[in-house]
Amino acid sequence: MIAELAQRAQELGGVKLYKRNIERVLSGLLVSDDFWTIVDISDLPVPGASAIVKVLIEEGLAFVDSSDGIRLTQKGLDLVKELGIEPHFDYTCQACEGRGIPFYAKPEFYREFLQLTKERPKAIRDYDQGSVTPETTISRVLFMDARGDVRNKNIIVLGAEDDLTGLAIALFRKARSVLVIDIDKRLIDFDNEIFRSLGIENARAMVWDLRNPLPKEILGSYDVFVSDPPETLPAFRAFIGRGIATLRQDGGVGYFGLTLRDSSVFRWRDFQVSLTTEFGVAITDIVQDFNIYETWDYHKETKAWELAPVKRDPQSTWYRSAWYRVEALPGFKRWNEPIGDDVFYLDEEGSTT
Amino acid sequence: MIAELAQRAQELGGVKLYKRNIERVLSGLLVSDDFWTIVDISDLPVPGASAIVKVLIEEGLAFVDSSDGIRLTQKGLDLVKELGIEPHFDYTCQACEGRGIPFYAKPEFYREFLQLTKERPKAIRDYDQGSVTPETTISRVLFMDARGDVRNKNIIVLGAEDDLTGLAIALFRKARSVLVIDIDKRLIDFDNEIFRSLGIENARAMVWDLRNPLPKEILGSYDVFVSDPPETLPAFRAFIGRGIATLRQDGGVGYFGLTLRDSSVFRWRDFQVSLTTEFGVAITDIVQDFNIYETWDYHKETKAWELAPVKRDPQSTWYRSAWYRVEALPGFKRWNEPIGDDVFYLDEEGSTT
Repeated sequence: MIAELAQRAQELGGVKLYKRNIERVLSGLLVSDDFWTIVDISDLPVPGASAIVKVLIEEGLAFVDSSDGIRLTQKGLDLVKELGIEPHFDYTCQACEGRGIPFYAKPEFYREFLQLTKERPKAIRDYDQGSVTPETTISRVLFMDARGDVRNKNIIVLGAEDDLTGLAIALFRKARSVLVIDIDKRLIDFDNEIFRSLGIENARAMVWDLRNPLPKEILGSYDVFVSDPPETLPAFRAFIGRGIATLRQDGGVGYFGLTLRDSSVFRWRDFQVSLTTEFGVAITDIVQDFNIYETWDYHKETKAWELAPVKRDPQSTWYRSAWYRVEALPGFKRWNEPIGDDVFYLDEEGSTT
Repeated sequence: MIAELAQRAQELGGVKLYKRNIERVLSGLLVSDDFWTIVDISDLPVPGASAIVKVLIEEGLAFVDSSDGIRLTQKGLDLVKELGIEPHFDYTCQACEGRGIPFYAKPEFYREFLQLTKERPKAIRDYDQGSVTPETTISRVLFMDARGDVRNKNIIVLGAEDDLTGLAIALFRKARSVLVIDIDKRLIDFDNEIFRSLGIENARAMVWDLRNPLPKEILGSYDVFVSDPPETLPAFRAFIGRGIATLRQDGGVGYFGLTLRDSSVFRWRDFQVSLTTEFGVAITDIVQDFNIYETWDYHKETKAWELAPVKRDPQSTWYRSAWYRVEALPGFKRWNEPIGDDVFYLDEEGSTT
């Protein structure tokens, strides 16, 4: 029965699914009626989670109530009982939001970042932006510092400055140098203005479209890179491939977010094969749900919204991504080819652009 | 200078090393004089960390003080300053010990486990045993439960029962069934006695040497496996390859610990290539320092002790491992070949057996 549901949802959603995906959605429906929370709990791309919910509704196992909540029918509850599925249980540490590192470990740093970024540019759709919470950004810097990847390092942040991670690293005032490159001039100007006004001389920001190869002087020049790519294969190359290309030598380190909300675990395997074989790096960390995103203003214009089985605003933050750390090993590859426009932001698994 | 030190230490220790490894050891020496803490901070195999410390001493950059602590000389301090190396900073969340999930989320479960395991068998050298703290074991079960990998699942624990993870899963009383297999009859008897006395009928334990292929009835029968292999390549196959072979279908899940104290990041890449290409699984989580080990009684009989630049007891827990979670994808491989005795527990990077 449940394998059949997975098969039908897979055909409807165009995303590979298996039995445990159905179980997770059912487990989520036992604790929330919010579609976006279900996506979060089930760790599925939106098209996948949406297709499962739609199939459950078609089968009379779930229904949409008068407040656009999704609920199990008696038939659905019977199935859940028969299968022994229990409510999703969340044990996330309340102190560190599950990251293992508390964002308030350096209160004066957190405070300064908050005050300086009060008027930050809002995430816009053009560049698949979506900002992580300030607590996430601060935690990224502390995580990097705990691994010895900040102090006295030359650090580049590529195409991820909607999160202001480059700004935060500069404000931490421990790096040797910080270069921020991003396609969005608003962010570049925002960063440079703060660097200038605070007299931070070892950081700068510059406009760059990562579809283009990086200029020579950036290649092989950095100890650490940070990025946050869209989850398509071309974008992965443009952001992570080029990130690795900026590393000066073996032992260079990369950080980036990857989500299961816009790519499946199947795609993740492809990324991992590419990282460990083609690019020649080892993965040292994958911390799920490290990056928590504010719901973007343009949510109702996205394919995700269009695909959703109900049109109701998310009841809380729902979009999370994992935090990857990789280390470049001897013989690692500096990839820096040009990339076309096609499927850069969107493909069959992505939907939140 | 520092690249040269790395080169010399690499030759001395027989473990690949690069510049950042030296930096991490120096950073550690700014906060601790305890060799074992330095190994922990530097995330290096013992032979690697030991070789670095020995080279630092030879170069007059460090010395052994009268209480067998390792300290930087003035020359060492000058170098550290010149290189801009700063003291290692630890931001680990005090609430959850950095795991992201607090072990006290289910106090009655934690309490029962502690009381029942007061007289647990001690870790012995014969089987490369080393027990994680009870807080680690409990956190493993909660982590698994948060991912939907316990309730109503058939779970097998392979060759890792020195940590009593199988016992803990059974005590959680949410799995459909639990099978524990381990080479150590003491642990098997310990588990079975508790299962019997508490009337836990869905759990059992049986003696098995993982060098031998698993019996047919175990292959392809489980939803989730848990293991904790020695970090040699043959042992990785025996524990993780066979673990994957126990999985019933796509979407099956595996958990295991891997450390950087007994294998390098280079070896990790080999493991990751093997997982994602040969075995056909995706890696969904790598949580560093999740597993904290009690220092074993036989520490002074190990190669690690012999290699250590000073013979002094560890000043605190120092051996940690990362917690991996993998998901089996369509076409995953059930590996179940026999394995020889050679280099099962020890090789050039391993030393704590």
